[in-house]
Amino acid sequence: MVQFAQARLDASFAALSDATRRGVLEQLGRSDASITTLAEKFHMTLTGMKKHLGILEQAGLVSTEKVGRVRTCKLGPRSLDEETAWLESYHQLWESRFDELDKVVEQLKRKEKVNGRRKRE
Amino acid sequence: MVQFAQARLDASFAALSDATRRGVLEQLGRSDASITTLAEKFHMTLTGMKKHLGILEQAGLVSTEKVGRVRTCKLGPRSLDEETAWLESYHQLWESRFDELDKVVEQLKRKEKVNGRRKRE
Repeated sequence: MVQFAQARLDASFAALSDATRRGVLEQLGRSDASITTLAEKFHMTLTGMKKHLGILEQAGLVSTEKVGRVRTCKLGPRSLDEETAWLESYHQLWESRFDELDKVVEQLKRKEKVNGRRKRE
Repeated sequence: MVQFAQARLDASFAALSDATRRGVLEQLGRSDASITTLAEKFHMTLTGMKKHLGILEQAGLVSTEKVGRVRTCKLGPRSLDEETAWLESYHQLWESRFDELDKVVEQLKRKEKVNGRRKRE
């Protein structure tokens, strides 16, 4: 497998392990939003939403900016390319693993057939 | 975005948020292994490894089977297709979002150019 920045993967997969946080990312993918708007949209207190945003911000997935009295949230600089690459690399391992098992099963079947024939002879 | 089974995504992204657990998946992608082998490989106590394996098993990423006195671990039934789909879907949102920003910047630049020209005239 490719070498990955493990701490970064830890942080981003942890950030993605919550439906609200994934929802916030999808929302910010459509348009920037204030913390208040996000809190209302996800039926949450401001404190609760700030906690989620902190986790997303630390993982580089969201960035926030205070303009006047309003803090606006937008998508951060990371597009999750490395995470996608990890999953794709894993998928290949997974497939080759199951291909191998298929081959073993195939061989066992062939052996049984031969044994069955020998017994009949 | 596509509709996803949120609880399943929660569990699998949480399972992936740890370098040891990702390492175990990569290892099992190469060959099945006993808990003892995995614990040794990742310099961990049996109890620590069992905890990680429990999280991976709950997320459907690993399955274990006891043959005689040895419990063997292998890759589970889930190949993380949905997780990859979520990331790809997010990537598209992210790209279109930044394309939009590029367009806004482009428009601002054009406006500035026009204004600059007007001032000179």
